[in-house]
Amino acid sequence: MEKTRKKLTFHQKLENAIKKNNTLLCVGLDPDLDKIPKHLIAGSDPIFAFNKAIIDATSDLVCSYKPQIAFYASQGLLGLKALIQTVSYIHMAYPHIPVILDAKRGDIGSTAIHYTKEVFDVIRADAVTVNPYLGFDSLQSFLERRDKGIIILCKTSNPSASDFQDAKINKEPLYIKVAKKIIAWNKQYHNCLMVIGATYPKELSAIRTLEPDMFFLVPGIGTQGGNLENTLKFGLTKNKSGLIISSSRAIIFASNGKDFAQMARKKAKKLKNEINKYR
Amino acid sequence: MEKTRKKLTFHQKLENAIKKNNTLLCVGLDPDLDKIPKHLIAGSDPIFAFNKAIIDATSDLVCSYKPQIAFYASQGLLGLKALIQTVSYIHMAYPHIPVILDAKRGDIGSTAIHYTKEVFDVIRADAVTVNPYLGFDSLQSFLERRDKGIIILCKTSNPSASDFQDAKINKEPLYIKVAKKIIAWNKQYHNCLMVIGATYPKELSAIRTLEPDMFFLVPGIGTQGGNLENTLKFGLTKNKSGLIISSSRAIIFASNGKDFAQMARKKAKKLKNEINKYR
Repeated sequence: MEKTRKKLTFHQKLENAIKKNNTLLCVGLDPDLDKIPKHLIAGSDPIFAFNKAIIDATSDLVCSYKPQIAFYASQGLLGLKALIQTVSYIHMAYPHIPVILDAKRGDIGSTAIHYTKEVFDVIRADAVTVNPYLGFDSLQSFLERRDKGIIILCKTSNPSASDFQDAKINKEPLYIKVAKKIIAWNKQYHNCLMVIGATYPKELSAIRTLEPDMFFLVPGIGTQGGNLENTLKFGLTKNKSGLIISSSRAIIFASNGKDFAQMARKKAKKLKNEINKYR
Repeated sequence: MEKTRKKLTFHQKLENAIKKNNTLLCVGLDPDLDKIPKHLIAGSDPIFAFNKAIIDATSDLVCSYKPQIAFYASQGLLGLKALIQTVSYIHMAYPHIPVILDAKRGDIGSTAIHYTKEVFDVIRADAVTVNPYLGFDSLQSFLERRDKGIIILCKTSNPSASDFQDAKINKEPLYIKVAKKIIAWNKQYHNCLMVIGATYPKELSAIRTLEPDMFFLVPGIGTQGGNLENTLKFGLTKNKSGLIISSSRAIIFASNGKDFAQMARKKAKKLKNEINKYR
């Protein structure tokens, strides 16, 4: 008789991985072909070979992996095949590590249903980033996948984030209005997270004050210049958790020689420890 | 010696197709496998077969085609292959008809570069829809493709559009702030359009007052309930153009029998003529 194992939700997997590896680090798998070591490019599947080496070298240091779909889609069908293969490899070799697909999808309800299938059924991610500009009905089909993590953009890490996200509505910026909506949606669905860039510590602090418990996905450490100490100081929950601190380029492209995976491990270990120093 | 032919920009192709076919109609190619005629499903490539029949039946009635990428991505690699094949078929068989990829992409600059490649180099669309929530640097790599059409979400057609797009900033709603930014970006790049849902005629009117010339992509006629007469009344430019009126489900799923392409043609012709009645 087959043994049945209860499938964990994204949140359960995430909390378990944080505990098991004692880490808040998420490694972004953004395999830019221009930066992948030359000796891999000649192989039949350089993207997957690169990702596999990075994953095998860092799996005890991370609480999640975050492939950004654009880096695969820009390489056509072979790129997307490598993405599916990468997610599948993580599920098989490291089933305790959740996979966040960074896709920032967002569309009207009837279309969103198809994006939901793309992310959770075709690519088989545990969580996904989505864009709130179209409002609730564009997110509903994602939210209804209660076992998944739905990570909604709030205050993004890029310089132009202020173009619209800081626009004042009744003296409060748009990102606060978005945060309040996410908090309300989470009361119903219990599977929401928010994206808040490490480049905006003041904003991170304001949102943590509004929402003491929710997980925030925090990009922007490293190449983008976000400050780690402030991110931890303003973002941690009372139990020294609640943050997924994502770094991509600074880790995965630490070296473009044959030692790329060891060097990525070294960088990841250093960042993991730095994060823990401030926890 | 090979004859060189000057490649037309999206805007030139669009204006030519509008004149040649005397139409503002855009047919959305959203091949939902649950709605495609049963007799096609058994074939080796039902999505492409469906699209090809719809395209061949309507090419003299439209000013553009608009595949929505989610309907392909939800079918995995074969779906995306059918999308690439569909775009390629339009370029080959009807090179005067531009293809708008509905993808609503939006991410930080270094990632946006890869989405730009996905849309214009892998899928080879003439224009793309993008999401403004992350601000200018998330759109820059798209805007820099001057020969392409960059169609930025402003006021979307869905019921929850009001969640954030109507939020008041200094007494003006967010979608007006977005529209003003798009108008400013267009002064520099000359390749912008906006998405404004037919379900919001008052908003359409307000934006046309701000911007007398720009093309608006208008979804929401048909299944979503947008009113055609008001859309034309409030949206047309002085020269009776400036609108791309998109309809998907109401046309392509007019019949699920063997007559699906003829019935799609009939519906498309009816809508094209209705639009022209109000021009």
